[in-house]
Amino acid sequence: MTVLAFIGLGIMGGPMAANLVKAGYDVIGYDTNHSALASLQNLGGRSAGSIAQAVTDADVVITMLPDSPDVQAVALGEEGIYANARAGTLHIDCSSIRPDIAQQLARRATDLGLRAVDAPVSGGEVGAIEALLSIMVGGQPDDVSEAQQILQHVGSTIVHVGPHGAGQTVKAANQLIVAGTIQLVAEAIVFLEAYGVDTTAAVKVLAGGLAGNAILDRKVTSMLQRDFTPGFRIDLHHKDMGILTSAARDAGVIIPLGSHVAQLIASLRASGHGQLDHTALLLLVERLSGRDLQSAKV
Amino acid sequence: MTVLAFIGLGIMGGPMAANLVKAGYDVIGYDTNHSALASLQNLGGRSAGSIAQAVTDADVVITMLPDSPDVQAVALGEEGIYANARAGTLHIDCSSIRPDIAQQLARRATDLGLRAVDAPVSGGEVGAIEALLSIMVGGQPDDVSEAQQILQHVGSTIVHVGPHGAGQTVKAANQLIVAGTIQLVAEAIVFLEAYGVDTTAAVKVLAGGLAGNAILDRKVTSMLQRDFTPGFRIDLHHKDMGILTSAARDAGVIIPLGSHVAQLIASLRASGHGQLDHTALLLLVERLSGRDLQSAKV
Amino acid sequence: MTVLAFIGLGIMGGPMAANLVKAGYDVIGYDTNHSALASLQNLGGRSAGSIAQAVTDADVVITMLPDSPDVQAVALGEEGIYANARAGTLHIDCSSIRPDIAQQLARRATDLGLRAVDAPVSGGEVGAIEALLSIMVGGQPDDVSEAQQILQHVGSTIVHVGPHGAGQTVKAANQLIVAGTIQLVAEAIVFLEAYGVDTTAAVKVLAGGLAGNAILDRKVTSMLQRDFTPGFRIDLHHKDMGILTSAARDAGVIIPLGSHVAQLIASLRASGHGQLDHTALLLLVERLSGRDLQSAKV
Amino acid sequence: MTVLAFIGLGIMGGPMAANLVKAGYDVIGYDTNHSALASLQNLGGRSAGSIAQAVTDADVVITMLPDSPDVQAVALGEEGIYANARAGTLHIDCSSIRPDIAQQLARRATDLGLRAVDAPVSGGEVGAIEALLSIMVGGQPDDVSEAQQILQHVGSTIVHVGPHGAGQTVKAANQLIVAGTIQLVAEAIVFLEAYGVDTTAAVKVLAGGLAGNAILDRKVTSMLQRDFTPGFRIDLHHKDMGILTSAARDAGVIIPLGSHVAQLIASLRASGHGQLDHTALLLLVERLSGRDLQSAKV
Repeated sequence: MTVLAFIGLGIMGGPMAANLVKAGYDVIGYDTNHSALASLQNLGGRSAGSIAQAVTDADVVITMLPDSPDVQAVALGEEGIYANARAGTLHIDCSSIRPDIAQQLARRATDLGLRAVDAPVSGGEVGAIEALLSIMVGGQPDDVSEAQQILQHVGSTIVHVGPHGAGQTVKAANQLIVAGTIQLVAEAIVFLEAYGVDTTAAVKVLAGGLAGNAILDRKVTSMLQRDFTPGFRIDLHHKDMGILTSAARDAGVIIPLGSHVAQLIASLRASGHGQLDHTALLLLVERLSGRDLQSAKV
Repeated sequence: MTVLAFIGLGIMGGPMAANLVKAGYDVIGYDTNHSALASLQNLGGRSAGSIAQAVTDADVVITMLPDSPDVQAVALGEEGIYANARAGTLHIDCSSIRPDIAQQLARRATDLGLRAVDAPVSGGEVGAIEALLSIMVGGQPDDVSEAQQILQHVGSTIVHVGPHGAGQTVKAANQLIVAGTIQLVAEAIVFLEAYGVDTTAAVKVLAGGLAGNAILDRKVTSMLQRDFTPGFRIDLHHKDMGILTSAARDAGVIIPLGSHVAQLIASLRASGHGQLDHTALLLLVERLSGRDLQSAKV
Repeated sequence: MTVLAFIGLGIMGGPMAANLVKAGYDVIGYDTNHSALASLQNLGGRSAGSIAQAVTDADVVITMLPDSPDVQAVALGEEGIYANARAGTLHIDCSSIRPDIAQQLARRATDLGLRAVDAPVSGGEVGAIEALLSIMVGGQPDDVSEAQQILQHVGSTIVHVGPHGAGQTVKAANQLIVAGTIQLVAEAIVFLEAYGVDTTAAVKVLAGGLAGNAILDRKVTSMLQRDFTPGFRIDLHHKDMGILTSAARDAGVIIPLGSHVAQLIASLRASGHGQLDHTALLLLVERLSGRDLQSAKV
Repeated sequence: MTVLAFIGLGIMGGPMAANLVKAGYDVIGYDTNHSALASLQNLGGRSAGSIAQAVTDADVVITMLPDSPDVQAVALGEEGIYANARAGTLHIDCSSIRPDIAQQLARRATDLGLRAVDAPVSGGEVGAIEALLSIMVGGQPDDVSEAQQILQHVGSTIVHVGPHGAGQTVKAANQLIVAGTIQLVAEAIVFLEAYGVDTTAAVKVLAGGLAGNAILDRKVTSMLQRDFTPGFRIDLHHKDMGILTSAARDAGVIIPLGSHVAQLIASLRASGHGQLDHTALLLLVERLSGRDLQSAKV
């Protein structure tokens, strides 16, 4: 039976690991949060007392961690994955991190006789629970194929998008489009409300044409109600926009709207709204337009 | 039998009038282009020698004209619709014009014992030919209902979105989201290409999640091939962005991305690309990123 | 003695007319505000009961009015300047209006045997009182020379900048640079304060180098104190940014920062700060950065 | 006699070291470029074969290096300054680097019994040669006073602007205002040219009022001639904008125009214009406005 080490059992990692247990894998989890470990054990997984213990006997190591430095520490630290994994172990990093760090990890893995793929996900907590994540995978074809066998139990769309780092690059592009689309919809809503338009009717016609998008399909009702319960928090999207803008700068790619919306997200966070859903960009457009006082529901 | 006058038999108006003839209406067309009139006659419509002649006996007058001043001239001029139509005539303006001009026309119509609704469309030439337009209608409920009876023969989605001008406001919001989304997808494509990502695979995963949108569904293949055959021309989208930015300014609504992408579209037009499809925003991102020389297909 | 009609005796026009009386001209004023007329009479000017009465015997007519439509009405209306002035009269328009309207006035003047120059000013109320305005003049060289003879009594720098409308174009460019520079200084101040820098010392070194500008020289002290007493109001700068963005759009000129700061000024106005000095852009940067709660003096 | 080690004898460091020799200091230079060392010796300075050799007997160590990683390597490396300097040595870093790195260096210096101040300069090669640099100094008051005694021989304005890192923060703010002002002037020039305005006359009136700035005073003539000989290269300003945008992001400060102009500078660099003077932002505005083909001198 394939032994999977799973490092990082948080909001996303927890349900992903649970789905892998259900799929029949021998999952050894590690997290600094003891209750997360206990939950995994209750579902039939195993619990490790350290990263080293988790990975020593693993065939595959999956990481799901907050940010680039976390993955670097867990993978490259003295007590980390790469120092303790067996030769040939496959490291699948599902975290959303900088593409250049993903490439650095892959080079280091190769040097040590290990293998690495970057496999960031989208779909949020619900996607993780329901095993409906979209997963964009970067790496060597054989390694990616092997990873896909496992990832199919946590996601519904698993696509090989290119070499090492490509998964992270696609994730950054994803976050660019998502943030920008939310902002466009927010601008449209405030504009329509200012003119006394029936926004529910308007959304119906907007969603059906070339302006149609997933935000109009899935998020606009809560936006119209000013319900900004996350969902995906501004703080996390701010982190992702940092990855995007750095990677674009490094590659000499100019992203006028991406750069602009990154500032708007940074503003929401600076104003103390980091814990709201990313659709709270609507709040900022209202505020800029002097309509925040008029909006009773905020 | 209801008599419809149809003023403006261009790329959009021509097929719309044709569909109304097919639906059984007595359609009297007027256009300065004689071959457009001849085409209508061949399909079973009638041809008028002047606006006055077209509208004198009409129950309903439909206009489909390029821009606000055209509609003002045709509706309000001495030889125009309002000076020659019978009391009670319903004017359905399908042009995309400024919301404040739509409101002005409605007030004038009311003063003269006429009725007006604004009913701009989206869906392009194909939508006009196939009677699959989306139509956003602003006006009095009874008038809108009457208009919907007719418009159902040229469109598939006809939605009453609010009072006079609301149709135009929703159209402006539509154009905001469309332009912004094209730009976001263009930024994503250049970013992904710069990193050597398999863009076809990437688009597949992007389109399936929260980044999904109609541009990724319908336009991205031609964008990846740098095929900018219109479709919807930059020149026209530039006109629409002018309507949007003016209307937003008038209402005190701040549209950071809308305003930004309006500049980018204006730049494409100033650079001589006004005749290309609006997806040519991709050209500008490439150029800003110094990648135009590398793109063999352009 | 040269007879000058002066239409528009407001905050700017009042002291300008007064300076022309002092310079020895026979000044006939007109304004809808009777106390402004009384003030002019007290200084030795004359008062007219209508525009027609003011201009009938004038050699030169000066206008100083709020916006383009005001100038159009006063110049072109049935009871206006052009209908009542003698052949050969020189119209000097000191208002800040759209360049295309200035050109339209000049064409109309020529058609009627009159002459027109556009001569917008900068320097504010203090400059008007102290006859230290900067004046940018567009028109035919002979007419401009004649205008300069008179304008030297209200300004210290009077420059012929090109053909009809050029004065307004330069004024728009002036307002672009002023607004943008205020915004840049505002961003710098909030950035420096966030890092605990001694801003008074920092301004000293910034002002002395390539970052030096008139805002740092004249306005930064009040900005650091959050004293936004006008000066030049946001509402007026908003009007001017509208002229700029329209004129740039008409000419196909892309103004990325100009367009961006126009949105920021519009936001301040929409948020109810239209009566503050334009340096209140600092408020907006603070607010976007979540630092408005920390700023005791606001 | 005070012994000064000077690390980094490039375009800026070379003339600064020369001026310190002239001022009577015992200057020991180090650079990987041998001809730079030879030049210093010819002027009466001494040449070291390694950083360690340069700093071992120095009272003060000055560094003038390209970027943050260079300073980190030279200061903190095993063969670097901090490992080899005597207790109490004062490190004056004149490089333009990230404020947080400046703070890190200061903490490390303190831990090791050394002292550090950050003292970035503005004024360019000419300022370095003529000892007319503006220098913004961050650090402990006593250390800054001691540094000022030395720096007065290389600059004309030396200002203590705050604690460790404050010098770099002010330098970043300086580069924000300079880049933004160049861009504003570039937008104004293209706008004025598009309208056929006499730009030389226009600049005269713009420079005299609230739009006045050092770019109009010192750089506009070469801009109007499209002479983009550096001066200060786009590549370097791009580096500085990276420092600015990172530092602003870290502090939660929103810089709408700063962020926007950073993209424009990045675009120029990506388009192969990194070696031009930063006033080449004018090229980009022309290009965006489709006026590059019309500009014979480019």
